[in-house]
Amino acid sequence: MLLGDCNQREAALALDGNTVALLPLGAVEVHGNHLPLLTDLYLAQGVCRLVSERVEGAVTLPGMPYGQIWSLRDKKGCLSVSDQTLSALLCEIGRSLYAQGVRRYAVVNGHVGNVNAMKATQRVLYDECDLKMYAFTYPGVGPAQRQVLTTPRPHPVYFHACEIETSYMLYLRPDRVDMAQAICQYPAFPPAMEALPTPWSAFMDTAVMGDATAATAEKGKAMIDAVVETIVRLLKEE
Amino acid sequence: MLLGDCNQREAALALDGNTVALLPLGAVEVHGNHLPLLTDLYLAQGVCRLVSERVEGAVTLPGMPYGQIWSLRDKKGCLSVSDQTLSALLCEIGRSLYAQGVRRYAVVNGHVGNVNAMKATQRVLYDECDLKMYAFTYPGVGPAQRQVLTTPRPHPVYFHACEIETSYMLYLRPDRVDMAQAICQYPAFPPAMEALPTPWSAFMDTAVMGDATAATAEKGKAMIDAVVETIVRLLKEE
Amino acid sequence: MLLGDCNQREAALALDGNTVALLPLGAVEVHGNHLPLLTDLYLAQGVCRLVSERVEGAVTLPGMPYGQIWSLRDKKGCLSVSDQTLSALLCEIGRSLYAQGVRRYAVVNGHVGNVNAMKATQRVLYDECDLKMYAFTYPGVGPAQRQVLTTPRPHPVYFHACEIETSYMLYLRPDRVDMAQAICQYPAFPPAMEALPTPWSAFMDTAVMGDATAATAEKGKAMIDAVVETIVRLLKEE
Amino acid sequence: MLLGDCNQREAALALDGNTVALLPLGAVEVHGNHLPLLTDLYLAQGVCRLVSERVEGAVTLPGMPYGQIWSLRDKKGCLSVSDQTLSALLCEIGRSLYAQGVRRYAVVNGHVGNVNAMKATQRVLYDECDLKMYAFTYPGVGPAQRQVLTTPRPHPVYFHACEIETSYMLYLRPDRVDMAQAICQYPAFPPAMEALPTPWSAFMDTAVMGDATAATAEKGKAMIDAVVETIVRLLKEE
Amino acid sequence: MLLGDCNQREAALALDGNTVALLPLGAVEVHGNHLPLLTDLYLAQGVCRLVSERVEGAVTLPGMPYGQIWSLRDKKGCLSVSDQTLSALLCEIGRSLYAQGVRRYAVVNGHVGNVNAMKATQRVLYDECDLKMYAFTYPGVGPAQRQVLTTPRPHPVYFHACEIETSYMLYLRPDRVDMAQAICQYPAFPPAMEALPTPWSAFMDTAVMGDATAATAEKGKAMIDAVVETIVRLLKEE
Amino acid sequence: MLLGDCNQREAALALDGNTVALLPLGAVEVHGNHLPLLTDLYLAQGVCRLVSERVEGAVTLPGMPYGQIWSLRDKKGCLSVSDQTLSALLCEIGRSLYAQGVRRYAVVNGHVGNVNAMKATQRVLYDECDLKMYAFTYPGVGPAQRQVLTTPRPHPVYFHACEIETSYMLYLRPDRVDMAQAICQYPAFPPAMEALPTPWSAFMDTAVMGDATAATAEKGKAMIDAVVETIVRLLKEE
Repeated sequence: MLLGDCNQREAALALDGNTVALLPLGAVEVHGNHLPLLTDLYLAQGVCRLVSERVEGAVTLPGMPYGQIWSLRDKKGCLSVSDQTLSALLCEIGRSLYAQGVRRYAVVNGHVGNVNAMKATQRVLYDECDLKMYAFTYPGVGPAQRQVLTTPRPHPVYFHACEIETSYMLYLRPDRVDMAQAICQYPAFPPAMEALPTPWSAFMDTAVMGDATAATAEKGKAMIDAVVETIVRLLKEE
Repeated sequence: MLLGDCNQREAALALDGNTVALLPLGAVEVHGNHLPLLTDLYLAQGVCRLVSERVEGAVTLPGMPYGQIWSLRDKKGCLSVSDQTLSALLCEIGRSLYAQGVRRYAVVNGHVGNVNAMKATQRVLYDECDLKMYAFTYPGVGPAQRQVLTTPRPHPVYFHACEIETSYMLYLRPDRVDMAQAICQYPAFPPAMEALPTPWSAFMDTAVMGDATAATAEKGKAMIDAVVETIVRLLKEE
Repeated sequence: MLLGDCNQREAALALDGNTVALLPLGAVEVHGNHLPLLTDLYLAQGVCRLVSERVEGAVTLPGMPYGQIWSLRDKKGCLSVSDQTLSALLCEIGRSLYAQGVRRYAVVNGHVGNVNAMKATQRVLYDECDLKMYAFTYPGVGPAQRQVLTTPRPHPVYFHACEIETSYMLYLRPDRVDMAQAICQYPAFPPAMEALPTPWSAFMDTAVMGDATAATAEKGKAMIDAVVETIVRLLKEE
Repeated sequence: MLLGDCNQREAALALDGNTVALLPLGAVEVHGNHLPLLTDLYLAQGVCRLVSERVEGAVTLPGMPYGQIWSLRDKKGCLSVSDQTLSALLCEIGRSLYAQGVRRYAVVNGHVGNVNAMKATQRVLYDECDLKMYAFTYPGVGPAQRQVLTTPRPHPVYFHACEIETSYMLYLRPDRVDMAQAICQYPAFPPAMEALPTPWSAFMDTAVMGDATAATAEKGKAMIDAVVETIVRLLKEE
Repeated sequence: MLLGDCNQREAALALDGNTVALLPLGAVEVHGNHLPLLTDLYLAQGVCRLVSERVEGAVTLPGMPYGQIWSLRDKKGCLSVSDQTLSALLCEIGRSLYAQGVRRYAVVNGHVGNVNAMKATQRVLYDECDLKMYAFTYPGVGPAQRQVLTTPRPHPVYFHACEIETSYMLYLRPDRVDMAQAICQYPAFPPAMEALPTPWSAFMDTAVMGDATAATAEKGKAMIDAVVETIVRLLKEE
Repeated sequence: MLLGDCNQREAALALDGNTVALLPLGAVEVHGNHLPLLTDLYLAQGVCRLVSERVEGAVTLPGMPYGQIWSLRDKKGCLSVSDQTLSALLCEIGRSLYAQGVRRYAVVNGHVGNVNAMKATQRVLYDECDLKMYAFTYPGVGPAQRQVLTTPRPHPVYFHACEIETSYMLYLRPDRVDMAQAICQYPAFPPAMEALPTPWSAFMDTAVMGDATAATAEKGKAMIDAVVETIVRLLKEE
């Protein structure tokens, strides 16, 4: 159920103590020439769709397209939101839900840069009320990744618009992928990348880190199914 | 052109000193049983679509669904964002655009409650840089309203989900209107409504102020065309 | 009763659950050469004086002279306070009153630029406690204006130091008006005035919008009496 | 010259690089039964009047009645403003003056509780621009006090509404003093008064610390003249 | 007992309703060539050591080395923290203690510049909970100073790295004093020093105000013993 | 060189464009019964000592003992600082250094919970000036860990006071370790640990995650040497 297309009566029925409110959270960020700027939101929405099919009481909130994209913020098209503002927004949405009786609020996030804002939000709300706020950024995807990926990771920490994300998109939104423009790019990372603030434009032009040409919908399905499985399990357990 | 569906190359070409960046701004708010919660975003997006057809360099940014909805915040489904957070977000998007060479940034707003946050944003950005930030909330609609509306206004200041907004929707998003559920409601406003903070739930249940049953697509077209005409003219003049 | 001239015992007697605390709020802003910079405060104080004669428990607080005057801030003599600071001040005064047992707090405002800060304050206090904070900016003046004004409005939204405000002053503080210097000025407003942040210095020098020469004390009395009547009625009703 | 009673032309002439803008700063605070709540503002205004007679370019801004009165905030009539808000207001007034060409801004303060906010303001403005902001709280009064006061100080640090302040008022605003109600009160201060936050209501009812009955206009004149002399000298030297 | 060297069990036993948590607070600030930059922290730690020997339940927290040092901030080695940040830190430490059952929290401060941040912290915590926060900056040292000091004060308000502080150090941390480099310096203070924000570099190079050569451990002992005596007494009384 | 023990002349010589300012950053947090609460600061100071021996221009600032310890904040002795306050402090120290000519500022952190505050600080300073702020939290330790650790990790993400940290301490501060109290504890982590905010007290009492009994100074040396090697290399390369 998409809350944004409910009318007043439907919304009133949809929100109560049994509801699991899913907020798709993305970013407006370049992902090379084979993926659109809204890739991360599309992925989050895709995961929400699959999760909501399997979780009783699931309601998907309107997707928040804007996220924190510091590393690529100087690339045209990247629209950057601060951790503070993003966290304030997530808090306020959480408080609205709580005031209306909802007790489970899951931010389903498609963009790693949003992780700190999500964690900050969780801690604010934790001290305020007994709303359970879940923060999901592809949880449980590790084993599936190790199983299906066929190209090396570009970096122990960083990857972007690569075999992983492109496979996700081929599974969830193939209509928004142009594999003819997919490239393989293994940038030479500066040695102090993790110790100094380093915009990615310092060492690469096109925002692809890894081998996007190796992406397939099957790989995407295996990984996303693991994510969905994990989310569903965690929402049911708690 | 929808920025969110651009790839990296398209985004780089789309954004420069000639760009007019249009940000559709809505709210997640109940609008009775004949309109969806995302009504205000759908309207803003509809206006952006029509404007972008007529303004050179127009680029529509991903729509921001969340707005400031204090008066209805206790209704289930209404997700409330503060003026401060909304303004911070609009500022940060504006700064991103400016840093990437854009000089005209128009927030096309579908929800009256967002007006103060927009004005605050304009003043912050005005002091920071020479980005022209336009704030449009149905500009120039007055004469058209006086011409086409056939039912009385419920209040000199307030109206909601009524002949006006329903007509807008019938023109811009008829697929999201259920006229079978449209009602006519003229609430008894408390005398101190404008002097004291007054949630609308204090005097009515269904969020309709006015006569939604009188809405038609033709009325919507007349009003929205005037809005679009005004926006196009102002963007070209300045 | 003016709180500022009370001694400790009088203040203690004056403030309790039956008190209506009136705060005159103005601005330090140029109003042409026929009116003083403190015009808006003088008007607010004049209204408070008339209201307090008719409302049991009315106590007038020391007037706050500083307000938000963005549009004229680059004119010499205009001393500008931000919405945030003004709202913080109004909140803190409200909290002091509430802690001392007062339950009705009415900001009687003479300057339109203060309206957003007042509304923000109301919403903060509304969530904190059951203090009733009224925000009055010439409430109920519309019908009287339509009846007595003899010159056209310069703009659907804007007016300043004109037939309206000068008439108010001729009624409430004639000692501070110099009609020999009153002028009539109908500026040519820029088309995008309401869509772009526009300092008034962009299109006029003297801060008069409208025809100050048409002002009379009688017009002022008719309008202010309507305002006072409205305020008295609303304070008694709620 | 009182800026608040200037018209637009006079204000424009009054403010430039030679101006010394004097801001009287007070507090709304009980001062026993022989002095009014606005005592501190009246004193600051009195000092400004005397200073402005002797300093070329002096312009007195509208007095700010509200100050930081933590220690007496639970007494009815005391309206409390935070250091943060007061400092923000003083900053914003300073910025307005600076933007209009003024280079000397003197806050003439009548209330000790405002001292920290004034210092904080000075440091903010010092880093922003070359506006000279003076903070004056009865500067240079020490020797005169030692000479004229005939009753002991109630405490090495604290005094209030006593021989000192009452004498000031008898000199500057005798019309607002009721010596018939003046009292002498030497409270028993709690031992940890300076180490723990201690509202004065913890150890006394009437807000008099010291012997108000010993006050005379002559003593007030001697002390205030020393203050005025000091301010005039410092404004001329720098 | 030094909390920082406790293990988990010891910490759990040390903190409860009978605990007096002592926080040594210093500053990183030049003190001429005979004293180290951490002088103020060393003094605060020395006082805490002596106090904790005499107060039951005393626990000394890890010393906070950083303080607010505006006046000397342009001297190399001076690391400056704002009042706001320092106060936020002190608040958060206080809240942690309170949440763990502690009811007495004494900031033992070695640096006068920290006084405003400490007072602000006290007031925040006072409104939040019943934690007693003591702010100690050499309390009760006045009489001892008048008795033992043999050189004149450089200024009624200011002194630094002089007979006073050097004597403190000779008593508490003689291993960190190099009397061979001690100097005597009586700077010519600018007349408006207390009225305008004045970095000390405007009138002197070496950060000594007063006669450091007159310092002795005996003087230090007399003064510090008075401070310790006062703190112990106040902690026991309340 | 320890800045805190420099005198004024030494500090002036130590700080310039060739300086590498090292800030040891810790936390006040329980680490079981075999390690002290200041463990993380001691580790950071130990690393700084070794780094400063090998890097020209290295100056170690006074250690900041307080850090962000949300997960263990309800354990007695854990003193919690917010991300915001910690980041503000780190910013202010960085600005002081920059104003004094320093261009390299390395926060050497011993506590994982501080990582977000450090990153936020880096981004603030990056936008303000060309100070290079390095954030080091045991960089380059991964390969050494895989080589020397002989017991399994308790969790893919979390570990604490275990073979790793105890070995660090046995190498850097053996005087502060009591191996007789070391324990081995593999807690049962709640399934949603990474998705929901989860205080560690929810699933364990003693703050040991992993096998502290397997710690040795040799393991500590191997890991810390790799960290020091990495830091030295990165500081020299950039």
